[in-house]
Amino acid sequence: MQSGDSQLRKRLFQIIFESDTPQAKAFDIVLITLILVSVGIVFLDSVPGLHARYGRIFYFIEWAFTLIFTLELALRLYCLDRPLRYLRSFYGVLDLLAILPTWLALFIPGAQSLLVVRVLRVLRVFRVLRLMEFVGEGRMLVEALQRSQRKILLFLTTILLIITIFGALIYMIEPPEAGFTSMPRAMYWAIVTLTTVGYGDIAPVTPLGQFISAVMMILGYSIIAVPTGVFSAEVIRSIQRERYSDEACPGCGHEGHERGAKYCRFCGTWLDEETEDPNAPSSETSDTTSESPEAHEKGD
Amino acid sequence: MQSGDSQLRKRLFQIIFESDTPQAKAFDIVLITLILVSVGIVFLDSVPGLHARYGRIFYFIEWAFTLIFTLELALRLYCLDRPLRYLRSFYGVLDLLAILPTWLALFIPGAQSLLVVRVLRVLRVFRVLRLMEFVGEGRMLVEALQRSQRKILLFLTTILLIITIFGALIYMIEPPEAGFTSMPRAMYWAIVTLTTVGYGDIAPVTPLGQFISAVMMILGYSIIAVPTGVFSAEVIRSIQRERYSDEACPGCGHEGHERGAKYCRFCGTWLDEETEDPNAPSSETSDTTSESPEAHEKGD
Amino acid sequence: MQSGDSQLRKRLFQIIFESDTPQAKAFDIVLITLILVSVGIVFLDSVPGLHARYGRIFYFIEWAFTLIFTLELALRLYCLDRPLRYLRSFYGVLDLLAILPTWLALFIPGAQSLLVVRVLRVLRVFRVLRLMEFVGEGRMLVEALQRSQRKILLFLTTILLIITIFGALIYMIEPPEAGFTSMPRAMYWAIVTLTTVGYGDIAPVTPLGQFISAVMMILGYSIIAVPTGVFSAEVIRSIQRERYSDEACPGCGHEGHERGAKYCRFCGTWLDEETEDPNAPSSETSDTTSESPEAHEKGD
Amino acid sequence: MQSGDSQLRKRLFQIIFESDTPQAKAFDIVLITLILVSVGIVFLDSVPGLHARYGRIFYFIEWAFTLIFTLELALRLYCLDRPLRYLRSFYGVLDLLAILPTWLALFIPGAQSLLVVRVLRVLRVFRVLRLMEFVGEGRMLVEALQRSQRKILLFLTTILLIITIFGALIYMIEPPEAGFTSMPRAMYWAIVTLTTVGYGDIAPVTPLGQFISAVMMILGYSIIAVPTGVFSAEVIRSIQRERYSDEACPGCGHEGHERGAKYCRFCGTWLDEETEDPNAPSSETSDTTSESPEAHEKGD
Repeated sequence: MQSGDSQLRKRLFQIIFESDTPQAKAFDIVLITLILVSVGIVFLDSVPGLHARYGRIFYFIEWAFTLIFTLELALRLYCLDRPLRYLRSFYGVLDLLAILPTWLALFIPGAQSLLVVRVLRVLRVFRVLRLMEFVGEGRMLVEALQRSQRKILLFLTTILLIITIFGALIYMIEPPEAGFTSMPRAMYWAIVTLTTVGYGDIAPVTPLGQFISAVMMILGYSIIAVPTGVFSAEVIRSIQRERYSDEACPGCGHEGHERGAKYCRFCGTWLDEETEDPNAPSSETSDTTSESPEAHEKGD
Repeated sequence: MQSGDSQLRKRLFQIIFESDTPQAKAFDIVLITLILVSVGIVFLDSVPGLHARYGRIFYFIEWAFTLIFTLELALRLYCLDRPLRYLRSFYGVLDLLAILPTWLALFIPGAQSLLVVRVLRVLRVFRVLRLMEFVGEGRMLVEALQRSQRKILLFLTTILLIITIFGALIYMIEPPEAGFTSMPRAMYWAIVTLTTVGYGDIAPVTPLGQFISAVMMILGYSIIAVPTGVFSAEVIRSIQRERYSDEACPGCGHEGHERGAKYCRFCGTWLDEETEDPNAPSSETSDTTSESPEAHEKGD
Repeated sequence: MQSGDSQLRKRLFQIIFESDTPQAKAFDIVLITLILVSVGIVFLDSVPGLHARYGRIFYFIEWAFTLIFTLELALRLYCLDRPLRYLRSFYGVLDLLAILPTWLALFIPGAQSLLVVRVLRVLRVFRVLRLMEFVGEGRMLVEALQRSQRKILLFLTTILLIITIFGALIYMIEPPEAGFTSMPRAMYWAIVTLTTVGYGDIAPVTPLGQFISAVMMILGYSIIAVPTGVFSAEVIRSIQRERYSDEACPGCGHEGHERGAKYCRFCGTWLDEETEDPNAPSSETSDTTSESPEAHEKGD
Repeated sequence: MQSGDSQLRKRLFQIIFESDTPQAKAFDIVLITLILVSVGIVFLDSVPGLHARYGRIFYFIEWAFTLIFTLELALRLYCLDRPLRYLRSFYGVLDLLAILPTWLALFIPGAQSLLVVRVLRVLRVFRVLRLMEFVGEGRMLVEALQRSQRKILLFLTTILLIITIFGALIYMIEPPEAGFTSMPRAMYWAIVTLTTVGYGDIAPVTPLGQFISAVMMILGYSIIAVPTGVFSAEVIRSIQRERYSDEACPGCGHEGHERGAKYCRFCGTWLDEETEDPNAPSSETSDTTSESPEAHEKGD
């Protein structure tokens, strides 16, 4: 009995947490569909017209999803050895956030405004993607981002300084009637302008303010080249790195040989250990045979 | 008679479907002009003022184009062996869409609102471009896009997650009076903001909402570096690949030699088959002649 | 006298058309200043408040500039052998456009609305820049643009097709009250949206229209990667090309050697013809001396 | 006493101006926090609602900061040998600007509108960042910017010419009622449009004006590829340059060897001075030993 339970937990673990059996893949697909549909219901329920007409139906569907996700979480916890540890992990918190709002809204009346939190269910999509090889693809992007991290941080700091100073400038110049009623609002305008979003809800009205805006727009328009250039360079470096294997030469220990290269470019050692060097024996033999007889002939 | 008919179909095929004879080129140019003019007429006819004044003239011109395009389609089908198969192909459907709306509007009164479908005629321009070498130029771009396909898909998924979560956030924070009346509208706003379009038809009014918008703008402004970097890297890889010929080494069969390279970098075989290897014969001969006579002299 | 006249014309030509003597440089700087100030006056004169108060002063300044530019053009024509040919050239037309509007406004009353044409004077700045080495700097950019010309044309064609089809779609979906009163207006909206400008003067109001806009925004936001990637790749290629000299190897005629390289990477010939190959004599000598004595000894 | 004073100044200098002792680092962190909080107070104080309620508290906090910064400046001047020279330097002026507005507002009533100048305190953050290694990271970015300087200047000049000419065009075409009341305003619109900001506070209303805007938008949307491409290329060049060491060859003095290279590519000298050249002694010895005995044998 104990053994059967342990076997069941093992099988459940393979289906729920892994992704290499057909059942596990089917589970992933069903889960990702349920997540997307449940988020879609949250969306539709937020439209006043639809809520008024189909509110009750949405309510029942929502409960169905909550029960399914609760069951799923229960199964996850059942087949883990340390269920509490999982609940404190990133994905455990996401699983809780997916069902808590609905349960809380049942017991606490004021919690209904938190129903929007259910949208965070979409983040669970990442778990499924992570299992599939799809996200492995993105590792290169993440690595390129990590390598350009400090440069991008420096870029963002510069952006924030530009925004602060231009925001203060425009706050001094423009009258409050134009919408620049406080420094934070002026900074909001500066961000809207520098990032070329340009809502137009606040816009300068004085000639000097418009001149400063113009300078800022051209700055924002040109400066985008900086993160783009940095990140492009890093992606190119990643792609070029892929061209080189990280195996060491058996002769001299050097790494970074081009994939498919046959000889070490530092010491000439044959790199492909699984096959034999076609030149090595023949040339050595010929060298020896061409010299040895000569020596023997001399000895005669 | 049968033979003359078959010959006529052959010639028509060359003119209509191919692009290498002067007549075929003339046909392409006439067709591309007719397509653009007919789409232009659809445009002008949609302007209320012009429709009121020149509506009748547009109507007759439109029928002239429809008759010409119908005749063109009939000729296309006539010179093909499997006309029905063509009609189900991509270009066949486009040809039908180019004439169907006008014909349908004649018989079915309600179909007039579908006249806009005639704009899809512009897609037929692609067929002509495909024939000319012009689109061949774009193959490198398409290949670079295909290679970066998965990374760009991952980028779009991330974008959609950001939009969903920020949309939900702003929906909770902003009052409905600001325009955030439902979650889909909040998501529409999030897309308008993240892509730096910034219509301003919906804009946050609370300080917290404006702060979240500001974060989103800077995110959208910076994150554009990702697809740009990925695609730049792929285009650069394509261009560098052009530097390498795809001819195989006659010695070991390896491909990917740098254009202009003389010796295979894997087995040392002379690559340029049209000329002789300057080192091969002279060095071998000199080696043999300098050793053999020596040996012979010793033998004496 | 004739000779003095010819000498004067020669000196004038050097000052006005060339840029390598101190006087010519001074002339360039004075000219560029006059052009920018005269355009500034056109700008200020277009502001209603300033025109009302300082209109007369602007009028006199404008005439002063026109007389100066007329004198300059006269001098240019005087020192050229074929003055009429110059007048038909690009810069000749620009010189005429710089003075014609003011002269015409004197004789023809209606021509006053053409005074704005004087703004085209800024284009004359290019002539001065062209003389200075500054524009030579930009040749690499122009070359990179030319090489990516066809790809960028293909990109623009694709953009136009997307705009046409999305414009037609939104025209069918959105009511005219939202501003989509005709197909050209819908296309204008499509351009405003795809390029992420987003005025917001026309914006979709139906949910379906907003969904299509959202798709278009994400498309426009991502597709910018294409011209950026193509152009980046071309600039990188240009920079890498700079690293290689275009001088041919004296031994085998191959071009494309890295600047500073000493030996041809194809045939090993010493590339720097001004100095001697330090290895060549010593190695040859040592080879000969080590073999010859041996042979001589054997002969003994 | 004099010696104690000199020692105190030395220690103060290390803490205040340098960044390598624990005390100096603590000082940096305290200073950066004070700067950010004081700028935050300026921000909050500018919000009318907060100013009305907490104005007095903000006033006292502000004075506290001013006194702290004044003390800091006094200490800085105390531990320097040439305090006046420091006051005229960039950072000295920033230090003065950080405290002057508050002091001036005490004595001169009208100076209160200059309180916004206190926002410039954020620039002092740069000093601290410069001390930490953080900004050293950005040197590569600055170098890449400097190398692309002329190209970016040329780009900006082109942008300004496009803006001037399109601004003049739209000014002629659009009626003043649409907002194009003067040429400077038309240029402001042109900048808003070309940089894809698109406030929508001024927008064309005539079909021709909208057509010209559309051309301009597509231009602005595509032309961003130019600075991005130039800067990307320069960053890539910088990264590739990192691959090369700047140590000189001990044989011929050439620099720019690839990191990890063993032999100078110009003269063949062994580069890695810490280890021995594996080929040099062994091959020479073997050559000599294999030949010498032979010669000796012959001599026998």
